[in-house]
Amino acid sequence: MTLETMGAAARAAARRLAMLSTQQKNDALHAIADTLAAQADAVLDANEADVAAGREKGLSQALLDRLLLNEERIAGLVGDARKVADLPDPVGEEMDSRVLENGMRLLRRRVPIGVLGVIYEARPNVTIDIATLSLKTGNAVILRGGSETLQSNLALVRIIQEALTKVKLPTDAVQYLEDPDRARVAELLRLDEYVDMIIPRGGAGLHRLCKEQSTIPVITGGIGICHIYVDESADLARAVDIVENAKVQRPSVCNALDTLLVHENVAARFLPMMARRLAASGVELRVTQAARPLVGTRHDAKVVEAGPDDFDQEWLSLILGIDVVPSLEAAIEHIQQHSTEHSDSILTNNWHRAQRFVDAVNSAAVYVNASTRFTDGGQFGLGAEVAVSTQKLHARGPMGLEALTTYKWIGLGHGQVRA
Amino acid sequence: MTLETMGAAARAAARRLAMLSTQQKNDALHAIADTLAAQADAVLDANEADVAAGREKGLSQALLDRLLLNEERIAGLVGDARKVADLPDPVGEEMDSRVLENGMRLLRRRVPIGVLGVIYEARPNVTIDIATLSLKTGNAVILRGGSETLQSNLALVRIIQEALTKVKLPTDAVQYLEDPDRARVAELLRLDEYVDMIIPRGGAGLHRLCKEQSTIPVITGGIGICHIYVDESADLARAVDIVENAKVQRPSVCNALDTLLVHENVAARFLPMMARRLAASGVELRVTQAARPLVGTRHDAKVVEAGPDDFDQEWLSLILGIDVVPSLEAAIEHIQQHSTEHSDSILTNNWHRAQRFVDAVNSAAVYVNASTRFTDGGQFGLGAEVAVSTQKLHARGPMGLEALTTYKWIGLGHGQVRA
Repeated sequence: MTLETMGAAARAAARRLAMLSTQQKNDALHAIADTLAAQADAVLDANEADVAAGREKGLSQALLDRLLLNEERIAGLVGDARKVADLPDPVGEEMDSRVLENGMRLLRRRVPIGVLGVIYEARPNVTIDIATLSLKTGNAVILRGGSETLQSNLALVRIIQEALTKVKLPTDAVQYLEDPDRARVAELLRLDEYVDMIIPRGGAGLHRLCKEQSTIPVITGGIGICHIYVDESADLARAVDIVENAKVQRPSVCNALDTLLVHENVAARFLPMMARRLAASGVELRVTQAARPLVGTRHDAKVVEAGPDDFDQEWLSLILGIDVVPSLEAAIEHIQQHSTEHSDSILTNNWHRAQRFVDAVNSAAVYVNASTRFTDGGQFGLGAEVAVSTQKLHARGPMGLEALTTYKWIGLGHGQVRA
Repeated sequence: MTLETMGAAARAAARRLAMLSTQQKNDALHAIADTLAAQADAVLDANEADVAAGREKGLSQALLDRLLLNEERIAGLVGDARKVADLPDPVGEEMDSRVLENGMRLLRRRVPIGVLGVIYEARPNVTIDIATLSLKTGNAVILRGGSETLQSNLALVRIIQEALTKVKLPTDAVQYLEDPDRARVAELLRLDEYVDMIIPRGGAGLHRLCKEQSTIPVITGGIGICHIYVDESADLARAVDIVENAKVQRPSVCNALDTLLVHENVAARFLPMMARRLAASGVELRVTQAARPLVGTRHDAKVVEAGPDDFDQEWLSLILGIDVVPSLEAAIEHIQQHSTEHSDSILTNNWHRAQRFVDAVNSAAVYVNASTRFTDGGQFGLGAEVAVSTQKLHARGPMGLEALTTYKWIGLGHGQVRA
């Protein structure tokens, strides 16, 4: 099947999905959950093949763990699909309805975007996540997962399509681009006649590829070089807790802390406390020459001198860059220079500095006295997370269901013409 | 000056603009209006040079008229700048503020996008329009106009920069890409480190170029193949007025009518009336074989048989494609196949068909019993129009000031960490 054919089929399916009631879409999601629960064995078998192939290819234990499915994880996916069914349906909402001077009623109605292209790496759970979120919002989707999870993904998509057939919906609503050839990805990125939005979920290389090659609007994001600035007025005991949480609680994700900036007036007090706490979790500290003497030695932390690129790293691991700054303005300047505009936080008890930080730091999420780890659709109460956007158009920060919709203007008249 | 330098300067200016109060931005807009009023002669001289060069190059009278400035038009621009000052400032608005279960207040604040790149063709008024709308929303902008209006644009940008200096704002807030080399446009489209959004204002070729080459999000739009479907239940006398308005009132713009679809049960009554009315304005009818005999001959309209591509044309002139259809569904199918999803209208007195049309036609603006000519920022009460988007992400349809903003999430805590 050519991508052109897949695209045309997706467009046709999207037109049908856009007309469905919330009940019909929820029935489809429950059918997916039921079918997945009933056929878990088929998915586990396929996944076993992926894991075996991955082991043979020498994938790291972390990567193997990411692609692994087991009964518990499948039960989790079944539950997730039902949770999406329980979420409110944003499609059909009408906004800003008003009557113009000429008597025409004008309003905006929330509608599906149409056809989504989602390109993702290792984790097979994304297949169910994205398929259910797309269906809930009346969008068709073309999925392209990583080669490491091909068998798992194909098994999951077969189940989704079987469920769609059961509820009499077109299987083209959820299609999978199976061909491992990378040239097909480039083709997908130029299928602008049929695909309305590209969502890459993966590393910086994938995002760059999509930005470079796509003629379709791309949602970039998910790359977080996150900062916490500890002001001289901060509650230092709380600051230790917050920095530890931001760095250690789940270091492999995009909202985990990468760089700690400390006001020079409190660095000599704060940094040794912080180093002691982080040492307990095995965090390695990459410290500037200026900060080095202030970190002290009465702790077990591994302290390494920071290299020139260490403040442009998304660590995704137990490493933390540390610098001292003479002022809030210097901290802001550092952040403006190095941040990927994902999540940045100030710890302070000073009203003006808190305001100034929130005004000047232009990241998707800006915090005062809180951990950067909150940047997440679930934490923000969106009910789901499609991706985390760090670009400026359409959606910014955690994207929930609403980010998979657009709107059309509707003008209801009785013969109005323009004067 | 390299584009890299221009981009970095624009970014720095954008950071300052983002911090301005509404009063400061309005002062800048009034300073632009004042300076333009005082130095109208300099602009008229520059424009005379453009017009003379255009005449020498053999530009059409229509094109020469578009690029012409005179005292009245300059006065119009002065008034427009003051009107933008009078519009409400969307920047700083806070939305969806709520307290999460953990006690952290979470809200979204509307902020400027940052740096805009705007590429436009002939009309010099766009220079003032876009500069003032960008400044009002705290965005810096890099402008690139058509070569036909280079002298006029440079004169206008000099005036804008002089006004910015008067109110102590950075002149880099509004920069003009002067180099006529087309390669510079391609460079601008890849300046994603510094430019956040590209707005092309011009023909289909320019939009295609931007989609193809840009690594920056592009707002495409402005191309309208617009339809009116006259249902068998329509009030035919009103339908004649609406179709005439949509086709004739200003045929050169994107929301003007291109294709008329008529239900076969009323075509023999409606089309001759319609042809008679359109003949009075000199509209040429491109008619399918099926519609031809129904148009009749008791009128002076020029009737030509429609060619195979005539329903994929944005006419921008006094030409109208006409077909008859056996049903609403056939009309919808035609529109789905040929529409650019700009503006489409149904004329009907049937409740279900009106609903069905509004549901199934997925254009940026969908009308019932009204002219397509209303798709316009001013008509929609947005106060201004940056562009008309026909894509699905960010903004759709007429874009007002709000479309030049994004938002950031702000989390205000007192020590919250993620569990």
